[in-house]
Amino acid sequence: MKIIKKKIAIDSKGQVEFTDITDKVEDIVAHSGIREGQVLIYSPHTTASIVINHNESMLLQDFMRVLYRLVPVSDRYSHDLFELNRSKTSDGRSNGHSHCKNMLLGVSQTVPLEKGKMMITERQSIFVAEMDGPRKRDIIVQIMGL
Amino acid sequence: MKIIKKKIAIDSKGQVEFTDITDKVEDIVAHSGIREGQVLIYSPHTTASIVINHNESMLLQDFMRVLYRLVPVSDRYSHDLFELNRSKTSDGRSNGHSHCKNMLLGVSQTVPLEKGKMMITERQSIFVAEMDGPRKRDIIVQIMGL
Amino acid sequence: MKIIKKKIAIDSKGQVEFTDITDKVEDIVAHSGIREGQVLIYSPHTTASIVINHNESMLLQDFMRVLYRLVPVSDRYSHDLFELNRSKTSDGRSNGHSHCKNMLLGVSQTVPLEKGKMMITERQSIFVAEMDGPRKRDIIVQIMGL
Repeated sequence: MKIIKKKIAIDSKGQVEFTDITDKVEDIVAHSGIREGQVLIYSPHTTASIVINHNESMLLQDFMRVLYRLVPVSDRYSHDLFELNRSKTSDGRSNGHSHCKNMLLGVSQTVPLEKGKMMITERQSIFVAEMDGPRKRDIIVQIMGL
Repeated sequence: MKIIKKKIAIDSKGQVEFTDITDKVEDIVAHSGIREGQVLIYSPHTTASIVINHNESMLLQDFMRVLYRLVPVSDRYSHDLFELNRSKTSDGRSNGHSHCKNMLLGVSQTVPLEKGKMMITERQSIFVAEMDGPRKRDIIVQIMGL
Repeated sequence: MKIIKKKIAIDSKGQVEFTDITDKVEDIVAHSGIREGQVLIYSPHTTASIVINHNESMLLQDFMRVLYRLVPVSDRYSHDLFELNRSKTSDGRSNGHSHCKNMLLGVSQTVPLEKGKMMITERQSIFVAEMDGPRKRDIIVQIMGL
């Protein structure tokens, strides 16, 4: 069995933003030499998720609007008071809503491989879903297999 | 290490529908000869998810009602305008809501194995959660282990 | 390839409760002798989830409040009638809401390993998210790798 691990650096510009990393993950898979197995795309962050869905710009707006509606930025979050009180040692962001969105979407996705390629279909893209940008993020791509 | 991969064909009848595939996944696990490891159940689709929960018909109604309430079909989705405008090359479905539900539920589940069996307990069933039926779907079951 | 499997016993006190099991999972990883690979944290239950996020007590209140708002305990759930009618053979809990929350959060998380340690960052903790406590739970930790 072979295990390969790489990082993908993300530099988000907006507060909530979907970045398509499909090509980058495909490259890592292609260079891994692994033909059968799985690729794990993992976000080692508490306010950035991994999502697999259709890369259509108006749909991405829908995703953001649904997330805003389910976990409104305008609500009060207890965590924001915590961040306020420790702002000397933290970045003091009011990002309670970002953590809650992250809890709903999760921090990883796993995709099976076949003959050296991810088994994603034509309409599936892999996104980093930034919930608290702009920020720099490192996403981990790990491939296990034969 | 051994890696086995099979497909399960789904033919959904309703718009939102939960199909129990536990027996089919169990069969694939039993025939794989793999005793320890994991099974990945993966939906290569942007409007169909994999869910593990209790197969009780009234609870499935609750699941659908919660999904309808969180992401109402009756809302406007920008993606629906996109589909309308390109209806010559697409199937023109107003399925923005289906993509959003899929984003919330995700496209895969992973279950550990023990002595050749999935470690699901009595009340756990594995479902394909159709969000944009009726449609034909191919679900991928991949087993990795020893 | 090596595969190690252990259980973590949880004894929740509240109805909805987040229990941090990061240290316990780290111990299992450290004793496994596996240096590269993955750890799967799996809940074999229909009303308890696994969540990775920041362990900050006011944020945990936000998580619970968001879950209560998205899937209110005070709504009617068809499943509760089912449980009522079969109360001789079940525990008769009105836990439709717990199953729905579990559907949204999922039953597992996968974390990659590097040099014998989980690649979680400073702010990430691993939680069992109890949705229908108080209850005893057994969480499965499975490590696959080299």
